Amino acid sequence: MGAIVLLSGGLDSATACAVARAEERTVHSISFRYGQRHVAEIACSERVAGSLGVASHRVIDIDLRDFGGSALTDDISVPKGRSTCQMAGEIPVTYVPARNTIFLSYALALAEVKKAHSIYIGVNAVDYSGYPDCRPEFITAFEAMANLSTKAAVEGARLSIRTPLLTLTKAEIIKLGLSLGVDYSLTSSCYDPDPTGAACGACDSCQLRRRGFEQNGLRDPIRYFA
Amino acid sequence: MGAIVLLSGGLDSATACAVARAEERTVHSISFRYGQRHVAEIACSERVAGSLGVASHRVIDIDLRDFGGSALTDDISVPKGRSTCQMAGEIPVTYVPARNTIFLSYALALAEVKKAHSIYIGVNAVDYSGYPDCRPEFITAFEAMANLSTKAAVEGARLSIRTPLLTLTKAEIIKLGLSLGVDYSLTSSCYDPDPTGAACGACDSCQLRRRGFEQNGLRDPIRYFA
Repeated sequence: MGAIVLLSGGLDSATACAVARAEERTVHSISFRYGQRHVAEIACSERVAGSLGVASHRVIDIDLRDFGGSALTDDISVPKGRSTCQMAGEIPVTYVPARNTIFLSYALALAEVKKAHSIYIGVNAVDYSGYPDCRPEFITAFEAMANLSTKAAVEGARLSIRTPLLTLTKAEIIKLGLSLGVDYSLTSSCYDPDPTGAACGACDSCQLRRRGFEQNGLRDPIRYFA
Repeated sequence: MGAIVLLSGGLDSATACAVARAEERTVHSISFRYGQRHVAEIACSERVAGSLGVASHRVIDIDLRDFGGSALTDDISVPKGRSTCQMAGEIPVTYVPARNTIFLSYALALAEVKKAHSIYIGVNAVDYSGYPDCRPEFITAFEAMANLSTKAAVEGARLSIRTPLLTLTKAEIIKLGLSLGVDYSLTSSCYDPDPTGAACGACDSCQLRRRGFEQNGLRDPIRYFA
């Protein structure tokens, strides 16, 4: 049976893709060019897809810039150097309105066309980003909706949204990925990379990632400019 | 308070938009260029939006052709001349995978950015098209998911999906729209119009529409080529 993977090119989605490859016969990955600052991650998604041997990878163009409302798509500064305490308990300005809902909706369409029975998404509720659309209750509600929305569902197919990283720490995610052969040098997590694609080391995403490698006694293999 | 309306340029969505204009202070409409054969409806959506005085109208480009699986986007024949019995109880080949889920997801993002508290969609369960994503249970599930997915929802805003046409016959929809000043000559419902935009008169959508006008003792004001 087949699966669809939301593959952004970041550390988490690369790991989710490796889990899907280990669990499913056929894996189709999908990523999105949505006006993000960190468009370098698109090239990463293609490299990760290739290295993990997916059956197909496609990049969908969607324009969320027109909608505004996020530091990831607008001229709003990405926060740097925040402590874990500062990250906790609030929704950051890097939140993009309804992003995961839109991404999962495309994945749902592709799942129906490819007759896939699952969608893998690398959301996480431990080293928690603060995004509402990464919470388990959101995922459960999306799955319920998805199973009412398609011709496949009416005809009896059951789609499940798989969240293999949901309860793992960043360190555990990295450990899992390494055990499945993920080459993290191909991934990109920074919200504000320099023009060469080097990571800033200071945004929330970089800090969480670096600490995850440190906790495994490893050095993150990607380049940082600071 | 504001509302978002999914405005395809067809009869139903034009009526839903008129209801939104009657019920809400500010209305933003949205339509989609998704690789449909009947792209003439985009121009209709713009004319309808203008005639109903919405605050803003935007056309979003999304490419579902790449996904395939529908007579509305692929080289699959649109069925013509079917009886109402033939239309009933099956999902037609004009079904587009996860289309309403994707459309509503964009509307959800726009609702958050515009601080709108409702999304209007012209789905109908009486003169029933057979599409799974027009059913009330789908709409209810989408609404539940939407209220878990956004920053606005976490902060306490409640979004409702409004379906003012859900229990109306096509004749009742037309009657409602006329009472609210909808100019149906601006709308387009045909799945397979000719290059001038004239309707075929024979696809499911044309047949349902024509009968709705007849039942009101009226002639449909749009052009038919057959």
